[in-house]
Amino acid sequence: MSITTVGLDADDTLWHNETIFRLTQDRFVAWLAPHADEAALRARLAEVERRNLRLYGYGVKGFTLSMIETAMELAGGADITPIVREILAAGREMLAFPVEPLPGVDDALAALSERYRLVLITKGDLMHQENKLAASGLGDLFVAVEVVSEKDAATYERVFSRHGAGADEAAMAGNSMRSDVLPALEAGAFAAHIPYALTWAHEEADAPVGHPRFAALGGISELPGWLDSLERRAA
Amino acid sequence: MSITTVGLDADDTLWHNETIFRLTQDRFVAWLAPHADEAALRARLAEVERRNLRLYGYGVKGFTLSMIETAMELAGGADITPIVREILAAGREMLAFPVEPLPGVDDALAALSERYRLVLITKGDLMHQENKLAASGLGDLFVAVEVVSEKDAATYERVFSRHGAGADEAAMAGNSMRSDVLPALEAGAFAAHIPYALTWAHEEADAPVGHPRFAALGGISELPGWLDSLERRAA
Repeated sequence: MSITTVGLDADDTLWHNETIFRLTQDRFVAWLAPHADEAALRARLAEVERRNLRLYGYGVKGFTLSMIETAMELAGGADITPIVREILAAGREMLAFPVEPLPGVDDALAALSERYRLVLITKGDLMHQENKLAASGLGDLFVAVEVVSEKDAATYERVFSRHGAGADEAAMAGNSMRSDVLPALEAGAFAAHIPYALTWAHEEADAPVGHPRFAALGGISELPGWLDSLERRAA
Repeated sequence: MSITTVGLDADDTLWHNETIFRLTQDRFVAWLAPHADEAALRARLAEVERRNLRLYGYGVKGFTLSMIETAMELAGGADITPIVREILAAGREMLAFPVEPLPGVDDALAALSERYRLVLITKGDLMHQENKLAASGLGDLFVAVEVVSEKDAATYERVFSRHGAGADEAAMAGNSMRSDVLPALEAGAFAAHIPYALTWAHEEADAPVGHPRFAALGGISELPGWLDSLERRAA
């Protein structure tokens, strides 16, 4: 057994994402303060996002539409035209937000790309994810970018077959237990959890402690060493 | 030479799309009638869509956001809360619109899928396109779905290499000269134009009359026969 392909999550693994969503949510709460109290507003926004997930999928455009819809529901017929203007502008700002690799990402990816085929595997809006990868300067390190509508075991099987020798010989790394770790393990791949300070409630899940193909890493800098140790263990 | 892979556009090739956009635009014009005359409104919406294309990409979510932004710009500070509510609902309706294959599509794809690897190649919102393909009942006929941010020659080269023996041995069919025909020819593939009653202005371009790998077909029913004739010509 040897690992040939490494899948990497993008948002909150290679660059900030949830932080930017939270900052926008905080602004949203402030704009709506005259119409709704904070706890009710946050709860309603989460509910509207969940309700729209099947139609909108993941990403900034759907989030922007869900903010407008939430404002509409909570303002009870009041004129929210100025708030809608702010929300639209905030959405565009999120899409244009400068992308900077998180600490350790440049070095880790440079090391990994010398030994493995790297594939970016991410949810979200296609054009936004491609724009972010281009802006990050990391694009050349990846052999492929897969923007997927759902990260389940079937997705990882398909992607690792397409860009390598199947999930058996692949490893996935990312900040979400629910989307990056558990379904990749289910597909038969190795999986490493790379922690990020914030996790979207929708992405939370328990760690598969004790699973022989799983590692909870302290950061992305530990990823090349962990993969090395797997190869040595197999040798 | 033999053709092994056939790429098919989705919107307005396999099912209606532009018609649904136009119907929504007509409703939009009616809602905004108190604030702007029709010609100015349509021109401004087209301009806002173009301006946002780089950030939003193609698809219903970006179109919905662009309608809201256009309404905002043209209403000059008036309360457009009720109009925003209508626009949001219209966007959701577009995403949930029932999908029915256009006439001739079922038979043509059934015939093609017996001889070629079929790949769906489309722009738009990832989840929406996957939902539409599932709803169409055509999903099983395709070996792959490629939702791409731009349809240029590099895209066709990449997709036809990934799912076949390269553009040389592939054909692309769709209703847009600009997105389906010209860049596929540039990549070295064959390309057939399948007319649709309406074309988004952004997608218009002249036909490459006389190009040895191009055909202007009367409809998708003629596609299997055209591909046969190419094989016979080469034999």
